[in-house]
This record gives sequence, structure tokens and C-alpha cells, in this order.
Amino acid sequence: MWRPSQLPELAGRLKSSGVSLDPARLTDLTSHPMNAVISLGGCTASFVSPDGLAITNHHCANGSIQFNSTADRNLLETGFTARSRSEELPAAPGTRISVTVAVTDVTGPVHRGLAAGLSGRQRYQAIEDRKKELIAACEEDPGHRCRVAAYHGGLEYELIKQLEIRDVRLVHAPAGAIGNYGGDIDNWMWPRHTGDYSFYRAYVGPDGKPADRDAANVPYRPRHHLKVSTRGLKEGDAVLVAGYPGSTSRHKTAAEAEDAFEWLYPTRTRVNRRTIELVARLTEGLPDAAIKYATVVSGLSNTLKNNEGMLAGYERSTLLRTKQELERGLRRWIEADPEHRGRHLPALDELGSLAARERRFRERTFFFGEVARRGALFSAARTLVRLAEERRSPDAAREPGYQDRDVGRIRDRLSRMERTFDAAVDRGLWRQAILDYAALPADQRVAAFDEWFGIKAEGGAPEGLDARLDGMYAATRLGAKEARLALMEATAESLAADQDPFIRLAVALLPADRALEEEQKEQDGRMEAARAGAMGALASYLLAQGRPLYPDANGTLRVTYGTVKGYRPRDGVSYLPFTGLTGLLQKETGKDPFNSPLALLEAVRAAGSSRFSDPALGTVPVNFLSDVDSTGGNSGSPTLDGRGELAGLLFDGNWESMTSSWEYQPDVKRAIHVDIRYVLWVMEHVHGAGELLRELGVESSSSSPSASSR
Amino acid sequence: MWRPSQLPELAGRLKSSGVSLDPARLTDLTSHPMNAVISLGGCTASFVSPDGLAITNHHCANGSIQFNSTADRNLLETGFTARSRSEELPAAPGTRISVTVAVTDVTGPVHRGLAAGLSGRQRYQAIEDRKKELIAACEEDPGHRCRVAAYHGGLEYELIKQLEIRDVRLVHAPAGAIGNYGGDIDNWMWPRHTGDYSFYRAYVGPDGKPADRDAANVPYRPRHHLKVSTRGLKEGDAVLVAGYPGSTSRHKTAAEAEDAFEWLYPTRTRVNRRTIELVARLTEGLPDAAIKYATVVSGLSNTLKNNEGMLAGYERSTLLRTKQELERGLRRWIEADPEHRGRHLPALDELGSLAARERRFRERTFFFGEVARRGALFSAARTLVRLAEERRSPDAAREPGYQDRDVGRIRDRLSRMERTFDAAVDRGLWRQAILDYAALPADQRVAAFDEWFGIKAEGGAPEGLDARLDGMYAATRLGAKEARLALMEATAESLAADQDPFIRLAVALLPADRALEEEQKEQDGRMEAARAGAMGALASYLLAQGRPLYPDANGTLRVTYGTVKGYRPRDGVSYLPFTGLTGLLQKETGKDPFNSPLALLEAVRAAGSSRFSDPALGTVPVNFLSDVDSTGGNSGSPTLDGRGELAGLLFDGNWESMTSSWEYQPDVKRAIHVDIRYVLWVMEHVHGAGELLRELGVESSSSSPSASSR
Repeated sequence: MWRPSQLPELAGRLKSSGVSLDPARLTDLTSHPMNAVISLGGCTASFVSPDGLAITNHHCANGSIQFNSTADRNLLETGFTARSRSEELPAAPGTRISVTVAVTDVTGPVHRGLAAGLSGRQRYQAIEDRKKELIAACEEDPGHRCRVAAYHGGLEYELIKQLEIRDVRLVHAPAGAIGNYGGDIDNWMWPRHTGDYSFYRAYVGPDGKPADRDAANVPYRPRHHLKVSTRGLKEGDAVLVAGYPGSTSRHKTAAEAEDAFEWLYPTRTRVNRRTIELVARLTEGLPDAAIKYATVVSGLSNTLKNNEGMLAGYERSTLLRTKQELERGLRRWIEADPEHRGRHLPALDELGSLAARERRFRERTFFFGEVARRGALFSAARTLVRLAEERRSPDAAREPGYQDRDVGRIRDRLSRMERTFDAAVDRGLWRQAILDYAALPADQRVAAFDEWFGIKAEGGAPEGLDARLDGMYAATRLGAKEARLALMEATAESLAADQDPFIRLAVALLPADRALEEEQKEQDGRMEAARAGAMGALASYLLAQGRPLYPDANGTLRVTYGTVKGYRPRDGVSYLPFTGLTGLLQKETGKDPFNSPLALLEAVRAAGSSRFSDPALGTVPVNFLSDVDSTGGNSGSPTLDGRGELAGLLFDGNWESMTSSWEYQPDVKRAIHVDIRYVLWVMEHVHGAGELLRELGVESSSSSPSASSR
Repeated sequence: MWRPSQLPELAGRLKSSGVSLDPARLTDLTSHPMNAVISLGGCTASFVSPDGLAITNHHCANGSIQFNSTADRNLLETGFTARSRSEELPAAPGTRISVTVAVTDVTGPVHRGLAAGLSGRQRYQAIEDRKKELIAACEEDPGHRCRVAAYHGGLEYELIKQLEIRDVRLVHAPAGAIGNYGGDIDNWMWPRHTGDYSFYRAYVGPDGKPADRDAANVPYRPRHHLKVSTRGLKEGDAVLVAGYPGSTSRHKTAAEAEDAFEWLYPTRTRVNRRTIELVARLTEGLPDAAIKYATVVSGLSNTLKNNEGMLAGYERSTLLRTKQELERGLRRWIEADPEHRGRHLPALDELGSLAARERRFRERTFFFGEVARRGALFSAARTLVRLAEERRSPDAAREPGYQDRDVGRIRDRLSRMERTFDAAVDRGLWRQAILDYAALPADQRVAAFDEWFGIKAEGGAPEGLDARLDGMYAATRLGAKEARLALMEATAESLAADQDPFIRLAVALLPADRALEEEQKEQDGRMEAARAGAMGALASYLLAQGRPLYPDANGTLRVTYGTVKGYRPRDGVSYLPFTGLTGLLQKETGKDPFNSPLALLEAVRAAGSSRFSDPALGTVPVNFLSDVDSTGGNSGSPTLDGRGELAGLLFDGNWESMTSSWEYQPDVKRAIHVDIRYVLWVMEHVHGAGELLRELGVESSSSSPSASSR
């Protein structure tokens, strides 16, 4: 996951792997192809036409498909194809397309003159203030969103400037039984047969600047877009993937890894499994509620399977041992040199004790976090109360997330809730989260919250919980979108007097929230220094051995390259790098999640002769494997061939490398891509999206049958 | 599954596949290597030393290992290694080693002068009489056992003469967690890591002739034995497998296939699954009883998984369609020629109506069969009563199975029962079989049996069944071996007056048994003519197209050849042809069936440097795949390399070709072999069987550690 600026150093490696693109070109974010690679926040997409058409994964557009679905017109099931631009549907509120336009090193300005004797809290504030200044200055350019990203936990900082397009529309999504073929069973698995793609279009005001959704808006014309290649890849071909990987923990310590694998993942696995069952029970026989919680469930299922895979992988892996050995080596290297000792040892020791402190409160962090995550009304009330509270201060002094620049996002969130909230389900999920929380020891709980529900010092389910919840859900007005949005304008004083039970609870929690936050800032300020110090030591140690170091993923634009390649999941078994339509038919059971639309099955029978068939494979290729490095956030990333043309979309990792957020294992780490030839075949033969094919520059075929389903 | 006599016709194909052995040599059953390939009845073995040492599968020696096991000294668990010849253990009663010494075509004598107008019953008798005569003449040579085998259902007959060695001893078996590694989970599966081998030794009298077990006996000195090869096979190498495949249905009709897949296999699957559960329940907490029924359970589990695989394979396969097309083609070919019409059509039609008749009584056949199979006392009583009854006639007129030549086998069976019989378990299994039978419609039941238990015309569980069974099991003396053996001498008259309830039931059933048998003989006599006629037609039809035809397996010595080769079980997945010790470690869970002995785990750690390692694989090879044709009965067959040396043992088929008893599918039909290098490694490193290695002609290694377990 190289920073684009690192690519020229890797020129030799890139060339020998078959990439003919000039690496220097990849460092220019305003030029082709990097300028076409865009972020959806949590997913990647890319422009593929001069009219702002963007391709990403089906699972990345899931929220928008769901947002436009009802029990009667379930686009998750049928898919959707706009026959004209006027038919394009609004993406889910909050959907944004971000184009990175500039990246500037701001390590100097962020760290300038930080005194050595600062407390954690002071250090945190100093850095926060500088970041806010940089962002504010950057965002004076209208239509742009900026952030200061930390690399190596704070060893370096970059100011990232992105054009932020906020009128995004859904253009085409395949049927769910194509876009999510294999569902949870096949998720993270090879062999795979998933058509995980969808299309958005970016719209801007008539002046070409980002604008709120409006009928007068026009398609955005990106400076560059990717060219779709129909040549096709084959085993051993070079591929290049550019995208926005979210977060990895490759450089975390052995102690942190141990805590994650021995506590966090097992706990989350247990809780998520139960939450999924609970949603199923609460939405049984209620198709509207089921649609509302479909995205939550698919997210939970995905995390669940990921964490199960991580735990299974951890059992087999030498991850912990490798980290421990690296740390022993690093310590020996430091201790061998008095100068290193003085400079690096304190940071390493501090990092260890800070991580130990985090472990001490891990139950509160996770289970009180669940209370917030599972209660949408509770969460909305806290946001509203906090927003009013922050507004007492001038904008620059407000907490990040509650500044004027954030108000639009808060509005989107409170508005989007409309489509993902059902009072009975919310009550059921929140109740379970409260019960879990109440079972914690007292030192892991929050007194003000306990007091509200009458949770006793010794913990356990409070008496009268159900009556209390019934009362709260009956009396609140936060279930109504209008009420939530109206409360965004309320003052702190009026909220303090508000009788809405959720608002009252949020107000009562405010001092505790603040206190916890202060604690966290002290911790974070110290952690920033310690982590940066430890990473600096590690970088020097590895440099001394001639080993390169790339920063952990942090949601910034990265480039990874590799080759199309299968792997050996276990003794006696080899996974081949391509799957095809013939194999899809072999999986077909007619039952979810292996229930292709009839139109697909009919089209497969004629597919032998399709222009998208691969001659070597003898059928239309569906998915392929490569050894590029990737993680969550890379979903939807364009997979470029050696010439920089679009050959597929990255959409998943593989089961055998679930621990890859902690280590890259070249023998089993693979990314799973949907072959662009399958995307084009589905568009042409199943969904009759000929107009879009033309927009992609793919000539329509005379042999193309007429569209039969949408 | 070629008859050895067919091999010279295949010389070109054999040579081009890499077999350097002269095919003509393979036709001489008295010469190397065929003379070394021996039958255990249901399994194959081969001589591997001049002193009668024979190698076969662990699962083929299972009965003998079990026979020598007790709860205190469970050889199924620990394995067994005789440190000297005096420590060798008696094989289970009835274990015989048969060496084929002559095969003679006797089609002429069997069919000579059979009148066209004979009834089925008459035709059956005529053929039976001639077979008996041929066998009696053949067996005048002492120590030999002969049979007349039908090919193509009676189109041809061969007289097979075998030297029958009846003093067989268990020499060495690995620990069950090696010999049956992966258990039912891995059974029929690839990738595989099973050390499925064991050693027997054949003993004869001091005169070199077969003799009953006796301390004075000496090891049999076979004319030829196989040489063990440590060179090792690699992908693409030719292999040749000689053995005694039991039974295939490649040439059965579409209607017969349909009946098997739509009724018999689903029924048997359901019943066997329940029987396995019932044995588990009945033997819970009773280790002695569990050991007694271990072989029954492993047989049932094996059949169950096989049939499940067949049903899954049938779903995917075109078996039925292919057979129907072949039959349509055959009919068209016959109908196009008046001469063919007159000759072949009647046989085809007759075959169809005979098969329909079998289907009509399939429930009785199966479920009354279960009553006999699941009740050991019932079965013993019927054998005893029938034996006495047959003895009223002169030997030559007796029913096959009850002639003087069969008495030794009956004695073995009644004696062996001692180790496989527990009254409470027998009662439980028999009771369930009776209940299933009683649920059949009246026309599928046997009146005399119904009368005994008071099963009413409308069927269903008879009143007082449990009391009746309790009474029978309390009163019988057949649970005692001495009583059973003593009753072998009883006359029909004395048995008619016997008060043992099982004897009384068997006597009461005698007329019904006879009547059913007469019906069956009529059917069989007609079937012999019809099947032979239909096969003759098919042979002519295929010959006209230049397609060869080999007879279905019938327990006679056959040769199959092919190459070491993986396969693609499904889209995107390739199975590699070898597994190794490293992969075994990856499977290890420490829990049954993946719980290798500690000695093996310790030895694996040092195995990188073993002389039995494969350089390309980087570890000791464990199992490998080839595309040779095989079926049940082939288990234990020697796998010869192109030079005719022993490179492994065939021990299983693969899941994807479970339907292979009905059709050979070259793309997925594979045999699974244990690599002889793994056998030698286990003997040397795990079980310290150095003396045996020397007997095999494998020099002992100076690096070999001392034995650590037995």
C-alpha cells in the first residue's frame, strides 16, 4: 500500500512485474490515472466516462440501492438500470464522491515547537488546533474538504485536499443475486462468482462546482477517466490497484495484537453473531423492517466472517511470534547503542504502558460503544445535545465533528436514519446492548448511565428495564425525521429543559461524556508521541537492514501492484486464478444465495460464443485473484492492467489471509476482483444496459440480445 | 478393469502411457507380478517378501486388528508390531489369502446344450449343476478353492482356481490414528493424509500345502513377490494396479440405474444413518460392546458416505441421460436390421420386464434383508437349520454355500461372531429392523415371519414385541459359541424338535425361505439368459462403432493402468496429485480423527531430512492420486510403477466420482493411493519396524531413531 510519492523508488520492481505505465505519472494526483480514482468514504470508485460516470462495488452502493427500495419495489433484489439520466436515483443521503486534488506534507507545521514537557492533554490540543487551522485554510477553496492524515501514528502528517461532490446518483446496479452472488457463504471465499459492481454518476452545479442535489445540476466532467479494457488479463499479468485502504495494524505491537486476537475479535464475534440473530428475530415477518436493517446485517455478517477468519488464521499463523521477534530485535539494536537507548527506549516503554491502559478499559470501550452503536435514538439524542453544547463556542474552538463544516453531514445522518430505523427493532437491539453493558464490573461502567436505568453497583439487569424502555420509546419524538432536524437548531439551554426522554438521558450523560473524552485526549496525546517515537525507531532499525517501510493504511490514496495469481490454500489443493460462467452454473442451486436471475441463466447458455469469453478459459471470466495488497476501503478500487486500463474491480480479500490487516503473507494474501468482462457481459446480456456500454466506450454488439430484466 | 488376457490388445496404449513392463507378461497369472497379487475376499493384497509377507490396507485388516483387541489392549488405537514371528497374531477367523493359479474359459461347458424352451428355474438348475461339477473337479487338487465367474451377466464364464491359504497372521498395523487418519470426515475425500496399510503373513503346513492354523506351520513361500520401490512416483508417471474389484454396474440399464439412485441409495442412506446412531446409543459407555461393533459401524459409515456421494454425484451427472441415449441408439441399431431384431429384441424386452419384477419386490428384498443382516442370532439360527436341511441330500445336490466345501467357512463365521456380537446391541438392532419391516405393505412381507411376531395384515409394530424379544434373547443358547458350533452337527429332525426360540423361528421360516428361493431361481435363470443376450447385443453394437467393452467387475483379477494425476473438482480449484507430511500437520487438531500419535508428530519435525522425502515436494509424500479405474475390492491393491515395482497401495476413490460404479468419468474419476515412502517412513520412524523393513529389502538407515511406540 504505497504512497503514490513512493512509486518512483519502486520503478524497477514495477517494470519487471510488467507495468508499462511510468511510475512518475502515478505520483501526479491531478493526472491520469490517479485523478480518476475517487473515494466514497469507506469505499473506492473510479470515473469511467467524461460525464462523471463512476464504477464501484455493488456492496459499496448497497446503502443507496437499499435507500431507493421498498418492499414492493426491492431494487436489492431486482437491480436497477436507469434508461435515461432523468431516471437516475438519488444516492443515500450523505453519499459523497471525493476527488483527491492535492497532498501536502505538513509534518513541520503540525509538530512545530511542541514543547517536550507537555501533558498528553496539552499535546493533543496543540496538535488538534494546528490541524484545524490547516484544514480551515485549505477549505477556504469552496467545494473542497480537507483533512490532516497522520502516518506512522504521527511521525508524519499530510494535508489532503479533496473536491467533494455531494449530488451523487445511482445509475445501474445488477440484481442482488448477481452483485452479491454467494452471499455470506461465499463472502471472503475462493472460488467466487460475484458480479460485485454498480454505477454512480457525479453531478455538480451548472457552474461546475459541487452543489446540493438539484434538478438544474449537470454531470460532473472529471479531468480524467479510466478506459475500459476488453483485452482481458491472464495468469501472471501485472495489475495495479489504486484506492483508499482504510486501516491496517501492520505496525502495532505484539501486545496489541495479542489483545485484539485474544479478546477483541472473540468478543466481537460472539456479540455480532447474537446481534444478527436478534435482528432476524425482531424483523421476522416484517419485510419493511427487514429492508431497513439489511445494510446493518450485511455489515455485521461481513465483520463476523472476517473476524472468524482472522481467529482461524491467527491459530495457524506465526503473527505473534514474528512480532515478538521483531520487537526483541529492535530492543537489542536500541540497547546496543547508548544514543539509541536514550532516544528510543522511553517511547517504546511509554507505548507499552499506554496500550496496557487501553486494555484496562477495553470492556467499557467495547460494550458502552455497543450501547451507542445499537441505539439509533440514543445516538441521535447525544449528537443533538452535543451539537448544541459545542455551538456555545466559536467555530474554531469546537470539537471536530461539530464544526460548521460538519453540520451538513450531521443533517444527512439524522435524515438517512429515516430509512434504517424501526422503533421496535431499535428498542430490541438497544435493550440487549444495555443488558450486556450492565453485566460489566462497576469500574467498566458509566455512573450517569447506570443512574438513569437504575443499574446497581453490583451490575446485572436493572429492575423495570422493559417498562422504562417502553416509556422512553413511547414518549420520544426523535423517531420523526422532522423532529430530529428541528432539534439541530435548538440551543443548549432549551435542550436542558427538554422533556424528551432520550434528550434528557443525553443531557444527563454530558458531563460523563466530557470526562471520558478528557481522559481519552490525555491518552491520545501521549500515544501520538509514543507511537511516532516507536515508529521512528522501527524505521531506523529496518533502514539499517535495508528493509523498506510503508505506513499503515489510513484512508488516504495508495497504490499497490502485483500479478494475477492463484495460491495453495492447503496441502494438495491449488486455487486457480480465474473462475468463469460455467463454474457459476455448477454452484447454482436456485436457492438464495445461489439463485441467479432467470435472465442470467438463459444468457449463460449462449455465453460460449460471447465476445466477452476468454478463449483459454472457454467461457466468460467472472472473478480473478491477484496478490496485490489491500484491505477494507479498497473495495471498488479499479484494477488496472499494465497499460493502466480498467480490467476489473477489487471487491474482497480471501479467507486464508484474514490476518492480513496485521501482516502481509505473500504466499496466501490475495485480493479477489470481478473481471470487467463479466461486468460488461452482465450489462449487455442480463440487464440490457447498452446505453451505458456505449458511454464506457464499448461498442454495442450486433449479437446482443434484447434486455429481458431490470 | 481389464481382464489380464485383454492386455496384449492394449500394448500400444500401455507403452505410450509409460509402462515398460511387457503386457504379455501380465497375462501369465503364475508369473511375476500377477502371481504376487492376492485376494483377501473383498480386498486385495500382495506378497512383498519371499516369506509370505503380504501388504494390504489397514481398513482391510481392520477385522483382524479388532479381533485381537480388548478394551485394555486396543490395537485399533495403538497399532501392532510383531517383534518376532512368534509374536504374530492370528487373523480373524475366516481370513484367507487366495492366490489365483489358473483361469479357464468354461463358457462352452456351462452353456452346452441348454435347450431354448427351459423355464427360468430349469435353466438356473442346469447352469448350477454344471458349475458345481466344474468346481468339484477343480477342487480335487487339495488346498485349492474354485469358482465359476460369470462375465457380462452370463455371456461368458471362467473357472477360477485359487490356492487358498487359511493360516493368516497379523504382522504389523499402524496406530488407528495413522491407518485411519481423517476417519469418516476424510473418507472418500481429497486432500488426504491416511497411512492405510497393514501387513499379514501367510502360513502353510510343513509340507508347503495350505493347512489350518498350527504352531508347526511355516511361512508360505510365494513363487513371486513384489519389489518395493523407494524411487517414488511423480505427477504424470504411469501406474498399473492389479486387484480384485468386486462389483460394478457400468452395463446395467437406465431403468436399473434410476431404481438404484431414486430408491435404493436414498433408502439405504436413511436406514444406515439411523443404524449408526442406534449402535452409538446402544454401546454408549460400553467400551467392549463398542469395539465389537466398530467394524460394523465403519462399514456402515463407509457405505453411507459412498451413497451420499453417489446421490450428490447423480444430481450433477448425466448418467441417466447417457444410458438412455445409449439404449436408444442400441434399439435403433437393432431395429434397422431384421436379423438383429429377431435375435436381440426379445432379450432386451425380457431384461426390462425382469428388472421391473425386481423393483416390485424391492422393499421386501431390502427390509427383510435388513432383518437378516441386523440380527446375528436370527441369522445364525437360519444358517444352522438350513445346513441340517441340506445335509439330507447328497453333497453334490446341496445348495451352494451348504456343501461340504463350505462347512469350514460356516464354522469360521459362527465362531467369529464371538467377537462381534453383544446380545443387548443385537436385540436393539434387530428390533429396529423388525419394526421397519413390519411397516411394509402386506405383499412385501413374509407370512411365516409375521405370524411368529403377531404382525397383523395391516402391518405396524406388533403388540408385545419387546416382551417377545426379551423372551427369545433370554431363552436362546445361540449366544454361546460352543452351542452354535455343536448345533452344526445336529440333524434336521433334532432341530425340528429343538426348543431354542431362534431355532424354532428358523424352522418355521424354512418353507417360506424355500419358496422365495424358488421364485428367485426362476428370476435368476431368466435373467441370466436375458442379460447375456442384451450384453451380446451391446457388444456387437459397440464393436460396430469400434468401441471396446470390458466386463463389469465380478471379484476376479483385473488390471487397470493410468497416470499420477490431479483433477479439478470445481471451477477455480485444482487438486494436486500429492499430499505430504507438512500438510498432515496442518490438519492436525489433536482431536479424533485428526489426532496423530505423539511419536508421529515428533518424527515429522525431523522429517525434512528423511531419506523418504520427495525432493520436489520438500517433505515425505503421504497420499497420491491417479486416474486408474477401481472400485470396492480394489482396496489394498498394489500400485506398480512403470517397471512393475511397488510404489503404493490403492485405498480409496474420490468424492467427485462416487457414481463411478455406474460410469467412468475420465475428468474426475481418481483413485487415492498411500505412497509406499510414507508406509516405510511410518514403519521406520513411528513404529520402529526395522526388522520388517529389512524383510522388504529396504536397508535400515543409520539415521533411524529407535522405536518409541507400538
